[in-house]
Amino acid sequence: MPGEFELIARHFVRPTPQTVLGPGDDCALLAPSPGVELAVSTDMLVAGTHFLPDTDPRQLGWKTLAVNLSDLAAMGAQPRWVFLAGSLPCARDDWLAPFAEGFFACAREFSVDLAGGDTTRGPLNLCVTAIGELPVGGALRRDRAMIGDDLWISGQPGLAALGLAHLQGRIRLPDPWEHRCLAALQQPQPRVQLGLILRQHRLARAAIDVSDGLLGDLHHLLERSQLAAEILVARLPPPPPDIDQDLALHCQLAGGDDYELLFSAARQDRDQLTAWARELGLPLWRIGRTVAGEPGGCSVIAADGRPLTIDQRGFDHFG
Amino acid sequence: MPGEFELIARHFVRPTPQTVLGPGDDCALLAPSPGVELAVSTDMLVAGTHFLPDTDPRQLGWKTLAVNLSDLAAMGAQPRWVFLAGSLPCARDDWLAPFAEGFFACAREFSVDLAGGDTTRGPLNLCVTAIGELPVGGALRRDRAMIGDDLWISGQPGLAALGLAHLQGRIRLPDPWEHRCLAALQQPQPRVQLGLILRQHRLARAAIDVSDGLLGDLHHLLERSQLAAEILVARLPPPPPDIDQDLALHCQLAGGDDYELLFSAARQDRDQLTAWARELGLPLWRIGRTVAGEPGGCSVIAADGRPLTIDQRGFDHFG
Repeated sequence: MPGEFELIARHFVRPTPQTVLGPGDDCALLAPSPGVELAVSTDMLVAGTHFLPDTDPRQLGWKTLAVNLSDLAAMGAQPRWVFLAGSLPCARDDWLAPFAEGFFACAREFSVDLAGGDTTRGPLNLCVTAIGELPVGGALRRDRAMIGDDLWISGQPGLAALGLAHLQGRIRLPDPWEHRCLAALQQPQPRVQLGLILRQHRLARAAIDVSDGLLGDLHHLLERSQLAAEILVARLPPPPPDIDQDLALHCQLAGGDDYELLFSAARQDRDQLTAWARELGLPLWRIGRTVAGEPGGCSVIAADGRPLTIDQRGFDHFG
Repeated sequence: MPGEFELIARHFVRPTPQTVLGPGDDCALLAPSPGVELAVSTDMLVAGTHFLPDTDPRQLGWKTLAVNLSDLAAMGAQPRWVFLAGSLPCARDDWLAPFAEGFFACAREFSVDLAGGDTTRGPLNLCVTAIGELPVGGALRRDRAMIGDDLWISGQPGLAALGLAHLQGRIRLPDPWEHRCLAALQQPQPRVQLGLILRQHRLARAAIDVSDGLLGDLHHLLERSQLAAEILVARLPPPPPDIDQDLALHCQLAGGDDYELLFSAARQDRDQLTAWARELGLPLWRIGRTVAGEPGGCSVIAADGRPLTIDQRGFDHFG
């Protein structure tokens, strides 16, 4: 069986053109661009909590990195470097090779260097730390929404949760939707380009990525901005037909694992946002607005105009 | 039972005076000092692999951070920010409170901000990413040793391994040594100050921190520098008396968990290093020298002048 160092070298040491000194020393050395702030995020994915132990390793490799880049996207940062620490029950080439393939496919797609990491033996656990760059003061923070802002969401929230329900046999998705929902679940696309555009063109006042469910993450944005909100269900993208529409709505509002960007923007920027959505080929949905009220509170208005009650808190690991 | 967010706030959100934006957003925001390089290290500690699940949480909190700062010390970096991701089987205040106390005691001691993190449910696993600053080009790398350099080690390697043997009942340490060995095991002191001095005064050519055992980590330094070495056992600090001297020597050379700095230095800097050892109150032992030879190779000469054979590779998680 190969040793730890051979294993790392075989699968995880790739060229690091953006890095002064990559894997192989006590630390990686990075040279930040002049005059930037760094956005740093760390996320831990645990077998049995965030994914099933028998998840396809290539998909897991992609997703492990993608969910971290989504946090950088939500700040409007340009991803630069990532670090991967992993605990593995055993070191198997036939698992590590496809995992690394998925991880580096995502790294190439978003032009980041894997600059360092750590491997050890233990229950399967993957921890990524991602570092991006931003101009000083330019970050899209959660706490900058203003009263009367429009609330927008990218893509189609709920697909990943529907994909999971499909895999679990709780629903049976019709054909083009099955593919879309499984792709959303297994190979989420961090909205890095959208985040950069929102930041560069000052089109978002506050932003967050939706990982715990739309309403749960909206709640965090509202709490930090000391505002409330109204969300109109009729404004959400239409869910797949021929499935339980209550389940579909629940997945949209509280499903989690979406990695879409939820952001607040001034009313006068509606046209520009619509134009960017076309340019990027990524739908942007104007689903409501911020209002005065109990910080974090959110009214959801159903398609028939009646208020909806739903658990807003999203997924909470120790709740 | 408190939720994830309440739990984080209660134990892990402390003032972050060095940080533009600390915990609570998608990313932390850091402003690196002008003209620096960043040294970044990530380390994962797993219950059952790196520590016993019933380890005192306060000591574990300290050590979780200390072992990462040791990597920054080995590059000569000034620690600035750390990130903590943790997977916990359950969220218990009576474990988290002392863990946080130990972690922040170490953070205060070395003036770092806990700028962000992640908590989740799962088997006990702690992952720290530490970021430090260095002048451009100033890092103490592993690959810069030169032929004929002296090899030095700080403190007293082997104590942590002896402490572990004592706890496991394999040896019985006499009294002042018991305390010293357990302290080395449970509350290791990252040699941050030494690393800064070695870097600022250009007193080390190459450096590494000793976490996997003196010979194992020396092997890494030598491999990267394409050199061999001779180590003189008689130059090591005297081990505790009244215990098996073979075990004591094995702990010194291959024990692991030392977090001392091993470095190469020019002969003409001997006096200055001896003076700094006094100034810092930290012994520095000149234990050998680099020589030409098979890269990574190391001859160990016993006190009686005969060559010693020992497993050089140290601890390897998948070996």
